[in-house]
Amino acid sequence: MDNSIRVTVWNEYLHETTYEEIRKVYPEGIHGCIAGFLKDAGMDVKTAVLSEPEHGLTDAVLESTDVLLWWGHMAHHKVEDAIVEKVYRRVMAGMGLIVLHSGHASKIMQKLCGTDSHLLRWREAGEKEILWVVDPAHPIAEGLGDRIELENEEMYGETFIIPKPDDIVFISWFEGGEVFRSGVTYARGRGRIFYFRPGHESFPTYYNKDVQRVLINAVKWAAPLQMPQVTLGQIKDPIMPLKNPVHNVISGLHSKKD
Amino acid sequence: MDNSIRVTVWNEYLHETTYEEIRKVYPEGIHGCIAGFLKDAGMDVKTAVLSEPEHGLTDAVLESTDVLLWWGHMAHHKVEDAIVEKVYRRVMAGMGLIVLHSGHASKIMQKLCGTDSHLLRWREAGEKEILWVVDPAHPIAEGLGDRIELENEEMYGETFIIPKPDDIVFISWFEGGEVFRSGVTYARGRGRIFYFRPGHESFPTYYNKDVQRVLINAVKWAAPLQMPQVTLGQIKDPIMPLKNPVHNVISGLHSKKD
Amino acid sequence: MDNSIRVTVWNEYLHETTYEEIRKVYPEGIHGCIAGFLKDAGMDVKTAVLSEPEHGLTDAVLESTDVLLWWGHMAHHKVEDAIVEKVYRRVMAGMGLIVLHSGHASKIMQKLCGTDSHLLRWREAGEKEILWVVDPAHPIAEGLGDRIELENEEMYGETFIIPKPDDIVFISWFEGGEVFRSGVTYARGRGRIFYFRPGHESFPTYYNKDVQRVLINAVKWAAPLQMPQVTLGQIKDPIMPLKNPVHNVISGLHSKKD
Amino acid sequence: MDNSIRVTVWNEYLHETTYEEIRKVYPEGIHGCIAGFLKDAGMDVKTAVLSEPEHGLTDAVLESTDVLLWWGHMAHHKVEDAIVEKVYRRVMAGMGLIVLHSGHASKIMQKLCGTDSHLLRWREAGEKEILWVVDPAHPIAEGLGDRIELENEEMYGETFIIPKPDDIVFISWFEGGEVFRSGVTYARGRGRIFYFRPGHESFPTYYNKDVQRVLINAVKWAAPLQMPQVTLGQIKDPIMPLKNPVHNVISGLHSKKD
Repeated sequence: MDNSIRVTVWNEYLHETTYEEIRKVYPEGIHGCIAGFLKDAGMDVKTAVLSEPEHGLTDAVLESTDVLLWWGHMAHHKVEDAIVEKVYRRVMAGMGLIVLHSGHASKIMQKLCGTDSHLLRWREAGEKEILWVVDPAHPIAEGLGDRIELENEEMYGETFIIPKPDDIVFISWFEGGEVFRSGVTYARGRGRIFYFRPGHESFPTYYNKDVQRVLINAVKWAAPLQMPQVTLGQIKDPIMPLKNPVHNVISGLHSKKD
Repeated sequence: MDNSIRVTVWNEYLHETTYEEIRKVYPEGIHGCIAGFLKDAGMDVKTAVLSEPEHGLTDAVLESTDVLLWWGHMAHHKVEDAIVEKVYRRVMAGMGLIVLHSGHASKIMQKLCGTDSHLLRWREAGEKEILWVVDPAHPIAEGLGDRIELENEEMYGETFIIPKPDDIVFISWFEGGEVFRSGVTYARGRGRIFYFRPGHESFPTYYNKDVQRVLINAVKWAAPLQMPQVTLGQIKDPIMPLKNPVHNVISGLHSKKD
Repeated sequence: MDNSIRVTVWNEYLHETTYEEIRKVYPEGIHGCIAGFLKDAGMDVKTAVLSEPEHGLTDAVLESTDVLLWWGHMAHHKVEDAIVEKVYRRVMAGMGLIVLHSGHASKIMQKLCGTDSHLLRWREAGEKEILWVVDPAHPIAEGLGDRIELENEEMYGETFIIPKPDDIVFISWFEGGEVFRSGVTYARGRGRIFYFRPGHESFPTYYNKDVQRVLINAVKWAAPLQMPQVTLGQIKDPIMPLKNPVHNVISGLHSKKD
Repeated sequence: MDNSIRVTVWNEYLHETTYEEIRKVYPEGIHGCIAGFLKDAGMDVKTAVLSEPEHGLTDAVLESTDVLLWWGHMAHHKVEDAIVEKVYRRVMAGMGLIVLHSGHASKIMQKLCGTDSHLLRWREAGEKEILWVVDPAHPIAEGLGDRIELENEEMYGETFIIPKPDDIVFISWFEGGEVFRSGVTYARGRGRIFYFRPGHESFPTYYNKDVQRVLINAVKWAAPLQMPQVTLGQIKDPIMPLKNPVHNVISGLHSKKD
């Protein structure tokens, strides 16, 4: 298992422990379900939940995580700012991040977006959703058909207040009349981020084989590369000679505040 | 002057008041210089500086500002978080924002980027900079030649840790061997943002006619539109009938937390 | 009328002359309808149709056109390549181009896209279309509500084989289950291009006030700027001295073939 | 070698056969040099040159090519349109394409761009080029340092008349004062394209280990995926029922011309 991607699946894990009907859908938690199919795909998978110390995201866990999946919904405000900051620093350094469903409103997603990404339309009516592939050359769409159909899902509708995505992989159609950019990517620093809309807790979305395929593809896509050695923090002289340098050349690779 | 764009030029205003040699370059402050040529272009211009109460950015000022220009350098950490939050909310609501030079490391820029946008190479050696127009169809490049040459400027070099820009208008060449994405745009919510690299305090950059043209163009480009009425905060029924809605349809236009 | 934008509305003008029921919808042709509301908006509007010599797009017409609108459907193959080439050259030089509805399959659109942009799903069933604004900061969406509803339109569905758009302004929802990137922009050379999906000949789409608003906004957005003087065709020496130039420096501003 | 990527390196192969001094730099042709290091990286590599029947790009060759590299310079106009069309169709269907150096002016590149991509500044003076990594999260930059330095290269300078790239991986600095977007990507249909600037025939650029690393990375990045099954050419009924379909529903997955 040496070369396998090291994944941590993080879940708020409140709906499943609070509501009997949600527990029936995901008896081992949403994280348990997701961890299961990622393991079956050959990945090295851990899980972590909100109630653990440091929400299960200790330095040791984060440092051994290549890709972090994030599912949260009703308790975004209970996630400690210090942990959010650590996750942010790891993304800047190259960790992949996959934000699921209501995670659009999480602290980490809003911090990385720089917008009010919690804003959108929504409706819990168990209506039909069709996710159309609009970027057939994208690795995250590999092996899919032209669309994914989900019989019952929560609706999210535009206008979704996010930055212009680097890539839009999926656009959703909803029975009630709305559309949504449901699979979008961003790069932030050395890290790669994928937001994937479906996954309401009361529907068996994560058992859908196409949804599983999307998440397996996304983990592979987001896994950190052997990174360019963009050295930071050393003083650097000009590479080329200057004709008339001012008296005291001051230089650096950081902002002056550091 | 009814229809003119209402601009506020914000300046840290510390270098000019502290160092005699900087004061010689900008006797009325960098903000005074910028306000001057924007007024000459027919705009309705105010200025504000760090030392004023609320940094001069009271609710009354922000609410009557269409486009805010931001110059800061050595005191980013002295800008109060509450003011940063207000500026952020105004950008989301449609106010244009033009971030100048060292403003790349300001709190507001980092918050809007969602990256460590303070990270880059830099060198104060008064070397030559050439800004090349790489998007000749962009309104911010209107009326320019194919490049702007500045005899002496501070160097900023890649890798600049910013999100993929919506548009790249200028790329800089520096005598010492570096390049830089020097004119980049972003949309955030309803607001439009332009970052423009040149403008070190010890050089007369803002007296350059091409630089002035860029900033005049950018203010016009960033000025808020008569916005789409993306209503938020009302409960919305499905637009189209649902076949099998779940029992109690719950819906909204906000995140569930609001 | 000196400063008004000079618009040419081009129409294939075959459906209206062939089918009585289409003529009832657009008695003066689709071009007549569009020209009417653009004139009312203060623009300087001409029209041109396929059957005219040079399809009405003579050098004199093209040279006095700031923005060209293009509606074609059943006779794309009858548009002469020489005229397509002239339109292409004008777009490169800065003329705006607005491609309407079935114009996605026109020669000029495919040439500018560099993809099989004629490929998409389609269905003529007069079904409901809802166009959602997904970029509320975009000038083309100015003054609209959050969506445009059209009771009856032809359906176009993804996957639409186009390059990644510079901007996506509208995404459509269709009653039959499809979505579509219905308002997208590109820059090509100095020219700006907007593709707008609705406008099937058998429905009164161009009488819709929101559709008219979109097209008026789009003409303003696509109108050429006072362009950067990116001079081409002159021999240029290095701007900066070279340490060890090879013997015979050869240089230019064109490809070597020109 | 079953799973290795099948690469074809295409070269005009005229400079090496015409000029003794170029032959000294690349005794086995530029294609021979490139094929060599790609083979060493475990790829299944063929070569093809202009003078062969069908320029060496027969149906059999193209159909067994996952990624095509293209080097051409002085004889773009001698490449037959029918072959260009076949390459284009393969890219649409998913073949990766890597366009090298003067290939920016090739027929295939211009067709895929939809712009005058042959237009740029240039100078043959053997001056220094520094390619800066501006997208440190991009797979094509994997394993590099923060820049690649080439002591002697031909200069290409902005403004380069290309569409807005999907990704900009490298920006070049030239000793004479210019900059250039030297590593850019596009998707077209199911195919992925990378343009890489360096590689003038009179300099030993393709022996540089960093340049080799870029091309190896690029081949891996551009190799076709197991593609989404975006079926084309079948008649499709609505996925969802329509309330008031017009009398004869007509539909398809192609343009109406096909």
